[in-house]
Amino acid sequence: MSVDNSLLEAYNQTTFPLIGHSKRNIQILKEALNDSDESMDSDVYGKGKLIEDFQNNMAEYLGKESAVFFPSGTMAQQIALRIWCDKKGLKKVAYHPLCHLEIHEEDGLKELHHIESILLADHSRTVQLEDVLSMNEDVSCLLLELPQREIGGQLPDYADLEAISAYCREKGIMLHLDGARLFEILPYFQKSAAEICKLFDSVYVSFYKGIGGIAGAILAGDEAFTKESKVWKRRHGGDLISLYPYIISADYYFKQRLPKMGQYYEEARELAGFYNQCHAIITKPLVPVSNMFHVHLDVTKAKLEAILLAIYEETSIGLTPSIRELSESSCYFEVHIGERYANVPKAGIKQVFQMLDERIR
Amino acid sequence: MSVDNSLLEAYNQTTFPLIGHSKRNIQILKEALNDSDESMDSDVYGKGKLIEDFQNNMAEYLGKESAVFFPSGTMAQQIALRIWCDKKGLKKVAYHPLCHLEIHEEDGLKELHHIESILLADHSRTVQLEDVLSMNEDVSCLLLELPQREIGGQLPDYADLEAISAYCREKGIMLHLDGARLFEILPYFQKSAAEICKLFDSVYVSFYKGIGGIAGAILAGDEAFTKESKVWKRRHGGDLISLYPYIISADYYFKQRLPKMGQYYEEARELAGFYNQCHAIITKPLVPVSNMFHVHLDVTKAKLEAILLAIYEETSIGLTPSIRELSESSCYFEVHIGERYANVPKAGIKQVFQMLDERIR
Repeated sequence: MSVDNSLLEAYNQTTFPLIGHSKRNIQILKEALNDSDESMDSDVYGKGKLIEDFQNNMAEYLGKESAVFFPSGTMAQQIALRIWCDKKGLKKVAYHPLCHLEIHEEDGLKELHHIESILLADHSRTVQLEDVLSMNEDVSCLLLELPQREIGGQLPDYADLEAISAYCREKGIMLHLDGARLFEILPYFQKSAAEICKLFDSVYVSFYKGIGGIAGAILAGDEAFTKESKVWKRRHGGDLISLYPYIISADYYFKQRLPKMGQYYEEARELAGFYNQCHAIITKPLVPVSNMFHVHLDVTKAKLEAILLAIYEETSIGLTPSIRELSESSCYFEVHIGERYANVPKAGIKQVFQMLDERIR
Repeated sequence: MSVDNSLLEAYNQTTFPLIGHSKRNIQILKEALNDSDESMDSDVYGKGKLIEDFQNNMAEYLGKESAVFFPSGTMAQQIALRIWCDKKGLKKVAYHPLCHLEIHEEDGLKELHHIESILLADHSRTVQLEDVLSMNEDVSCLLLELPQREIGGQLPDYADLEAISAYCREKGIMLHLDGARLFEILPYFQKSAAEICKLFDSVYVSFYKGIGGIAGAILAGDEAFTKESKVWKRRHGGDLISLYPYIISADYYFKQRLPKMGQYYEEARELAGFYNQCHAIITKPLVPVSNMFHVHLDVTKAKLEAILLAIYEETSIGLTPSIRELSESSCYFEVHIGERYANVPKAGIKQVFQMLDERIR
């Protein structure tokens, strides 16, 4: 067994794991289904009350003409970019170098759609107006991820966003929102989802991050756009005869947890504060702007693992299930807040951070 | 409301609809989940006991080295053909003109994978050895669908299948099985699934036709093939964080209904016999070779609808929810047998066919 696995197992055995909502087990589906009438008809190839109601509700919530439920964001976003590229007749898009499409999709965008990517900004920051202004290549579409997950969930200034949107409209560049964690940034921006989405031509949101559903995504935009997206959904093999297990759970947890995004955000700020009081630890961003952040530590991965294993054993509080090496002498891990954090005794959390601070020196 | 909808609604209101297992409602998922321990861990991006156990069981059942669970057959089959085309360096495949990839997938094979299709045989019959021998173009892969759904679920002779397989092996043409209804033909062929699959290099099977699950498919082949299929599954957006709602129901109904394929097949033969005793009606095939067949009628669609609406009303037995026009004076519909047929009183069925025979004249 690798050391990584022992940390994961020790984390899973703590009474109080700090991250997320709950264990990913089938109780999540059972709970969502308990609420549903068993005689409710399945959706059938994208049709039927169950899927259409959810799509209509999400279109309204996001302030878009129309919305389509997809099994995955990977599928939804490739398709969005393909549609915009076809519309402009230019297979080129721009996004951040740590965009999901660039690093997590086995190059589906290039291998299936033959779309070239122009990378803006760098690993330390989000895409800003300047990056867009100084692009010296024409693109069909710019994708912005809010918040930028792989750099701890950072956000651009809202004014910068508005300026990027205005510039893109002027230049005829379609603007797509990777809103995998859009619900999670509403409390910081103090905007409605529709206000933010108004800046974009198309929007993808996910239901298994902050919402904690099982899987699935919504892609929203104007009627012509979503109509074309359904054709591509079928081509990708995503037009399943029934998507209702995902839709029912998306709907159930969306209603339950959307109102709690403010709480998760406040708790993330509190927890980041605890980390930042420790020696050799800093969070990115320093003050979270959503329910997530990254914890960077100037210690070796091996040393941190040993420290955490002992702390989990002694306190039964779990900080993270895994650690990633950054260099020979530094490492980091990701934190996102859900239902669990509120259930952990504050005194225990303070004790954990005292221990961490002492042992990491 | 169109006439088509009234037939569907009248069918759904009969006490004894003859086709399939049950209504497609969420009770299907609830029943499958009742059997499962709620603390069972979700699969996570294709990993975990839940998905791996099912994949291993299916690989063994199909007699293949390895198997991968896919959200849809559309995705699985495009990927299978892509892998074989890449292996041979030739983007050309052969299949029947009514192949699912040719008529139901919005040309995903062409639009996403740029694979050209050569059409063998015609609308009246299945692909035979002669068609393969007389192909005057080189192809990477031949796809055979057993049974050929769109022509009533017809099958080639088993000896012909074996000869096609031997020829393809000799010529280096990869042979792929569209086994969407493979389980359903085992009683007729009197072969195990593994015996049939042995003739093919790759195999797709579905879990929501005869099995009656919610959605999902297995793609099986050798280790190198399935490994590559997982890369393409991610590219397509099919590598969902959790596929367990489909896997649990596939597993549950597979165990329950695989042993009943013989019964469904016998019942299909019986029901086809009733149709064939009627004036102006013939089934394709004349004697079914699986649980399905098509009913062809030498009457107008409008006349048949009127007759059926009256029969459903008078007997509360439903023959079909929909009818498709073939010409100005003929039409057809599809029948597939599942759990429902055995529950319908035989006297009622005989009465229905007496009425149908009298009124269709």
